[in-house]
Amino acid sequence: LTAQVTSSLARTGNGYPRMKLSYQELLAFQGVKRYEMDQSCCFDTMLLDEERGRLFVGAKNYLLSLSLDNISKQQHMIYWPAPVDWREECNWAGKDINTDCVNYVKVLHHYNRTHLYACGTGAFHPTCAFVEVGQKMEDRVFRIDPNKVEDGKGKSPYDPKHQAASVLIGDELYSGVATDLMGRDFTIFRSLGHRNSIRTEQHDSRWLNEPKFNSAFWVPESENPDDDKIFFFFRETAVEGQGLGKSTYSRIGQLCRNDVGGQRSLVNKWTSFLKTRLICSVPGSDGSDTYFDELRDVFLLQTRDRKNPLVYTIFSTSSSVFKGSAVCIYTMNDIRRAFLGPFAHKEGPNYQWVPFQGKVPYPRPGMCPSKTFGSFESTKQFPDDVIQFARHHPLMYNPVYPLNRRPVFVRTNAEHSFTQIAVDRVAAADGQYDVMFIGTDVGSVLKVISVPKESWKNMEELLLEELQVFKDASPIINMQISSKRQQLYVGSETGLAQVPLHRCSSYGKACAECCLA
Amino acid sequence: LTAQVTSSLARTGNGYPRMKLSYQELLAFQGVKRYEMDQSCCFDTMLLDEERGRLFVGAKNYLLSLSLDNISKQQHMIYWPAPVDWREECNWAGKDINTDCVNYVKVLHHYNRTHLYACGTGAFHPTCAFVEVGQKMEDRVFRIDPNKVEDGKGKSPYDPKHQAASVLIGDELYSGVATDLMGRDFTIFRSLGHRNSIRTEQHDSRWLNEPKFNSAFWVPESENPDDDKIFFFFRETAVEGQGLGKSTYSRIGQLCRNDVGGQRSLVNKWTSFLKTRLICSVPGSDGSDTYFDELRDVFLLQTRDRKNPLVYTIFSTSSSVFKGSAVCIYTMNDIRRAFLGPFAHKEGPNYQWVPFQGKVPYPRPGMCPSKTFGSFESTKQFPDDVIQFARHHPLMYNPVYPLNRRPVFVRTNAEHSFTQIAVDRVAAADGQYDVMFIGTDVGSVLKVISVPKESWKNMEELLLEELQVFKDASPIINMQISSKRQQLYVGSETGLAQVPLHRCSSYGKACAECCLA
Repeated sequence: LTAQVTSSLARTGNGYPRMKLSYQELLAFQGVKRYEMDQSCCFDTMLLDEERGRLFVGAKNYLLSLSLDNISKQQHMIYWPAPVDWREECNWAGKDINTDCVNYVKVLHHYNRTHLYACGTGAFHPTCAFVEVGQKMEDRVFRIDPNKVEDGKGKSPYDPKHQAASVLIGDELYSGVATDLMGRDFTIFRSLGHRNSIRTEQHDSRWLNEPKFNSAFWVPESENPDDDKIFFFFRETAVEGQGLGKSTYSRIGQLCRNDVGGQRSLVNKWTSFLKTRLICSVPGSDGSDTYFDELRDVFLLQTRDRKNPLVYTIFSTSSSVFKGSAVCIYTMNDIRRAFLGPFAHKEGPNYQWVPFQGKVPYPRPGMCPSKTFGSFESTKQFPDDVIQFARHHPLMYNPVYPLNRRPVFVRTNAEHSFTQIAVDRVAAADGQYDVMFIGTDVGSVLKVISVPKESWKNMEELLLEELQVFKDASPIINMQISSKRQQLYVGSETGLAQVPLHRCSSYGKACAECCLA
Repeated sequence: LTAQVTSSLARTGNGYPRMKLSYQELLAFQGVKRYEMDQSCCFDTMLLDEERGRLFVGAKNYLLSLSLDNISKQQHMIYWPAPVDWREECNWAGKDINTDCVNYVKVLHHYNRTHLYACGTGAFHPTCAFVEVGQKMEDRVFRIDPNKVEDGKGKSPYDPKHQAASVLIGDELYSGVATDLMGRDFTIFRSLGHRNSIRTEQHDSRWLNEPKFNSAFWVPESENPDDDKIFFFFRETAVEGQGLGKSTYSRIGQLCRNDVGGQRSLVNKWTSFLKTRLICSVPGSDGSDTYFDELRDVFLLQTRDRKNPLVYTIFSTSSSVFKGSAVCIYTMNDIRRAFLGPFAHKEGPNYQWVPFQGKVPYPRPGMCPSKTFGSFESTKQFPDDVIQFARHHPLMYNPVYPLNRRPVFVRTNAEHSFTQIAVDRVAAADGQYDVMFIGTDVGSVLKVISVPKESWKNMEELLLEELQVFKDASPIINMQISSKRQQLYVGSETGLAQVPLHRCSSYGKACAECCLA
């Protein structure tokens, strides 16, 4: 396989895709299926349901259920507007009646075998609802249970321009979101379920500093579910960035699933919250690296070991002069090592951030109470000094560097920047290949593959295809992949598109060529 | 004039020069004169002598005297090699006999009415000499006085790859240079003349931290010569850059001409040395600016007021990914304000740099002893607390921002970067215009003019010409301008070129067009 790809690279030249298809060409190849709705927009929430064969979608005033096989057929929809009085209230507060004071669905999760959980902005009045979808595909049920509509504060943002990052585990929702109308009180919040709600410390820039949440995932840490962790990905204003101007850093934050807060201090606040910087940079010859500081998307590629998915990320530059995007990959090993490393410590206002040199109390903050690592059964049993230490040291000193200390794929001076990523792991005769699908802000999808360059330790990225999936060049705001169906589902402001992962018929007949198409 | 330029801009389109001449075209227009020497290279030292009508040039093993009217005619030269035993010694130390172990002339100044002062690397054995040039142009004298050859340590670098920045005032030489064979002990050094030699504090990264010196200028501060200052421009590794990686900052440093060092402390060291950061950045919408961190060249444009020249500078980016260059202009007002602002202070290793809040001793460090601002007659009379404070606070907290807080001209994603700048102030019917000549690393010169866009406060830069002055695309390493003769003298590794500032005959006959040509 490698030899074939390399020779194909030689034919097409570096930096250019092997195949570039315009929207018309893609339609002609029958490679793309479309879904549009005149009365809605903003398809930025998607949920794959492989079992039922459905793609659930949240949009402006609507919930959709589409067929995974063909998104343009067999659609069901729920009209879910904000009530008139909320819309008027929103409008009186100075917001636009049609663009702001409506219900944008921002959260959509599987709740149980028969229901989804969905939240929307509700005209700056966040609202959540249980959505009945039936037990089986044949049930064709798709409706909101009107008795189970509830307040969505701390779950969905108020402002349609904001993004919520959330994950639903068991019957509990973990969300990173602004919990107030003005969009100033940002929190990582656990709600729903039977335990007390729990959140991050308020008004403490060391915990969260104007964060922009991107995504959240649940990753087991051992075979013991007590060690389960939730990871949040976000970017925020760096507290470390002293002196001139404002710096944005990208972060990964961690929480224990069994955190129930402290007993005397940090009551109903996380005692296991830690965060650190995610670095995606190109090393310079003289030590001055080029940073891609703004995290745009995260995709967890599951491996055989559920504890160790590969973290694929998209970053872009902060600069208004130099535009560029990069793909960086992180391992859970490196992430865990950073959280086990030194805590960042700042003695006072005129001090700088240094690695904490003193004695860290036991149990070390960030460890979950479990039989794996200790004898504490609940975070409420943690000694006071642990809680105090955790409260003042949410930031780790060591950042997480990407695999091989550099991005796997970089694009600069292009007319587009990257917005979304999804990855398909493909088994070939000579090993496995990760095929990256990268969405851009001009409605196109890049298909990029890593191939070994001499050895499997030294990979080279090839741009295979550049597909214009949206005719109107609107930014891609969501992307879901079904490896089972070999389909990619793409959402933008204006519509949805479905593209097969591979277009074998467009290429030659050789099987290897086809695998890579 | 403005209207004509604007319409011309409309015709040619933005970002492209009005006229782009290849080397052949430039030759054909008789617009360029060339000087080359098979046996030499590296014409990076130039000295204009308008009175004698000569261009003195320092190169590898040679000193040249060329005619300012036509550099390809009436040349005189001095062969100035390094002695054979020094060359052999250099070669034994592992350096290359032909590229390193020769004499590169790095320093060339007017010394008095009959002599120049020149220094060279002398095969890693810096050497200086007085060069007799006669009283008048007709004298045609051009020779080194063999009795007046002296040690060049602290004046010329040892390493041909290093640059010395120096200025000769009266009979004293101020130079920024590495004073040791290994190129580790960098200093700003005053030598020659009758006073004791004086230098910067040694082994103190707060004073100088791996500096790369660029240029030095003498600027009066008042009508009283006791207030005269010397300014050094350099870049260095930022002590402020904490945490990850290495940052390069560009600096302006100041000294008093009448500084003779301290009495008990800082003996034969500067007591008036202060430095601060020169910022050249493009503001970002969200507060994250794009920095051009590496100072490449400085040109002082003299105005009617000798105390207030305009400081034209060239900067480039540090990144290996994003390449760009910018022109920033600084006023002496802003520079002086930074040196009168707060001192940068760091209490200890774990502290950060903050503005010093305590009481600054009198007389304030950085002020020259003079009747203008106090009653001290010499820096040796300064109280101990002043000397101690000066020793520990060479760095100012406030940086110097460019005029209008942004570059006047930026080029990104170009195949070249800027290396040199010279500016000609042109009087036109409706005001004065500054015409910038910008040398690049591919042997071309850009001609850029600032024209008012609506008002004289809001200027717009137009790229008028792009001239390929060197056929071999070698980087331009020196550029001198003669406004009197309306000629630009350009030096590279491989040769010298002379170009008239304007090519009137290539344009239409209208006078205004001609002025801008």
